[in-house]
Amino acid sequence: MTTPAYAAAEAKAPLTPWTIERRTPGPHEVQIEIRYCGVCHSDIHQARAEWGGGIFPMVPGHEIVGHVGAVGSAVTRFKVGDSVGVGCFVDSCRECKPCRDGEEQYCQNGMTATYNSVERGTRTPTYGGYSTRIVVNEDYVLRVPASIPLDRAAPLLCAGITVYSPLRHYGLKAGDHVAVVGLGGLGHMGVKIARAMGARVTVLSTSPSKRDDALKLGADDFAATSDKATFKKLAGSFDFILDTVSAPHDYNAYLGLLRLDGTMILVGLPDQPVPLSAGPLIMGRRRLVGSLIGGIRETQEMLDFCAEHDVASDIELIPIEKINEAYERMIKGDVRYRFVIDCASFR
Amino acid sequence: MTTPAYAAAEAKAPLTPWTIERRTPGPHEVQIEIRYCGVCHSDIHQARAEWGGGIFPMVPGHEIVGHVGAVGSAVTRFKVGDSVGVGCFVDSCRECKPCRDGEEQYCQNGMTATYNSVERGTRTPTYGGYSTRIVVNEDYVLRVPASIPLDRAAPLLCAGITVYSPLRHYGLKAGDHVAVVGLGGLGHMGVKIARAMGARVTVLSTSPSKRDDALKLGADDFAATSDKATFKKLAGSFDFILDTVSAPHDYNAYLGLLRLDGTMILVGLPDQPVPLSAGPLIMGRRRLVGSLIGGIRETQEMLDFCAEHDVASDIELIPIEKINEAYERMIKGDVRYRFVIDCASFR
Repeated sequence: MTTPAYAAAEAKAPLTPWTIERRTPGPHEVQIEIRYCGVCHSDIHQARAEWGGGIFPMVPGHEIVGHVGAVGSAVTRFKVGDSVGVGCFVDSCRECKPCRDGEEQYCQNGMTATYNSVERGTRTPTYGGYSTRIVVNEDYVLRVPASIPLDRAAPLLCAGITVYSPLRHYGLKAGDHVAVVGLGGLGHMGVKIARAMGARVTVLSTSPSKRDDALKLGADDFAATSDKATFKKLAGSFDFILDTVSAPHDYNAYLGLLRLDGTMILVGLPDQPVPLSAGPLIMGRRRLVGSLIGGIRETQEMLDFCAEHDVASDIELIPIEKINEAYERMIKGDVRYRFVIDCASFR
Repeated sequence: MTTPAYAAAEAKAPLTPWTIERRTPGPHEVQIEIRYCGVCHSDIHQARAEWGGGIFPMVPGHEIVGHVGAVGSAVTRFKVGDSVGVGCFVDSCRECKPCRDGEEQYCQNGMTATYNSVERGTRTPTYGGYSTRIVVNEDYVLRVPASIPLDRAAPLLCAGITVYSPLRHYGLKAGDHVAVVGLGGLGHMGVKIARAMGARVTVLSTSPSKRDDALKLGADDFAATSDKATFKKLAGSFDFILDTVSAPHDYNAYLGLLRLDGTMILVGLPDQPVPLSAGPLIMGRRRLVGSLIGGIRETQEMLDFCAEHDVASDIELIPIEKINEAYERMIKGDVRYRFVIDCASFR
């Protein structure tokens, strides 16, 4: 099926209208009519080939929600009209240990990314959610609970699961004290989800101006990291630090804010190494850990959790024509807190 | 009691004979006649003020074993003649959470180090095990099981517990695959203790010449890190990496050797920060963690474990007169694997 999309024709080119072919759903596949697609900072990195290479023309977008438009003959879990979502990957090998364990994001043979990747078998490029339709194997499709507004659900598929998964995996408990570093797309979901898990949340941000926003989002407290006294005042305070910042910053200073046996979780990926001192890790038996999105099972669990706890993303809805402008604003940090494309604007 | 010792009169001075006063044991104190004292690399760092400052004259030594020579009136756990040991600290606040949890090494008010520190209360300097006698509160004295040769038990008090504690704390299980990085005082104990815990052990060392030694110590395998192919061949192999190296080295390359959810434990403290890439942590949900010696309860558990599993340090026994020469040889890595001072040589 010929489907409208927006693509970067080549690395760093602005996104412009393009047309892609979506296949007729196979027996186990679901055709999704895309309603909304979140705009993730990694869309920019990839459209600009900042992570090295890329498959062009590229149609970004991996925070996809919509309704089922058609199902293959063997599909059992979805029917036409269901509210569904697709996140950062649309397939994986299904055979390696992580895949068998439901942690497809760590597939040892490489997950098939929702865009900027190639389909298993046919090796044809994958195209993402800056489009009106996508066809995905039902095992990689999420069910979006009715109580979450569909547009505000889109960013949960990447930003939401990226913060939910490590907080669960590394054992956040109700009453724990969590610092969320950075109040962007990931950070604002971190505040909401950690709060919903029963944690006490402090937002740490370079911008004192974000205090009001942090408290409005549900944070219990705020501290400006531009003030060096913060690192003294809050030393040894936190059970967890959820670090969502991808610009290089001083890990050592933040590690000092953890209590004995505390855990600092990295979900932001700086483009260069950061000097690390072993001292704060050794002297406080602290942990510096990473985490990458989440598996299908856990993403569904996260969506259900968000529905139960009334959690959704704070978004700014844009028509697809504004995508290049949105990128520029994101680079300046000028978005509260996620742009979401209204895919009705393609028509 | 006037007691012979060896001291560095000032930073970087060679160690020379000196005389210290040891107090008469108080009601809860044990007087130990020191038989052997291990020589830890940190003795050199401190005697040379390489960690900033130091209390001089300094009598190093925190791998102390000997026999109880006298006990205070209220001592219940030890009697004259018992084989006992003292490790890196001789007191702590006893009131903070780590102290109450038996993790005195993380005392929030600062543990009292066995040397290069000051006694709580009197604020008089502490002097270590390069001596023939020491007086310590019974709560900070370890019992050395009879089956461990006393001289080979000395290094367990620091090197042994430094590797035992994190392997336990971070959950090493029988059958896990552990890489031990560096085959010095800490590393050789790492091999022995990890093996005794039922792990499969691979030694990673820059020196291919250490292969035979590694296998003799009980390692299942050896790989030279001077060969870049090692990092490709062993990628994703290990559940744990026990990194005992204190010279700066590329953490990122080693992190790539961990499997999904693997843990790299730092017990060596480089004197400068090391560039760290978040990528290996995020992409493999890996953990980079630290650990500092161990508490009194766990040190006793480690000694009992070593007795049960026939584990002791491989040592080179020296008279105190050879201490300066020993330091020079340690700096060159020329010791298999720990110098131990025979304190009979003081007489």
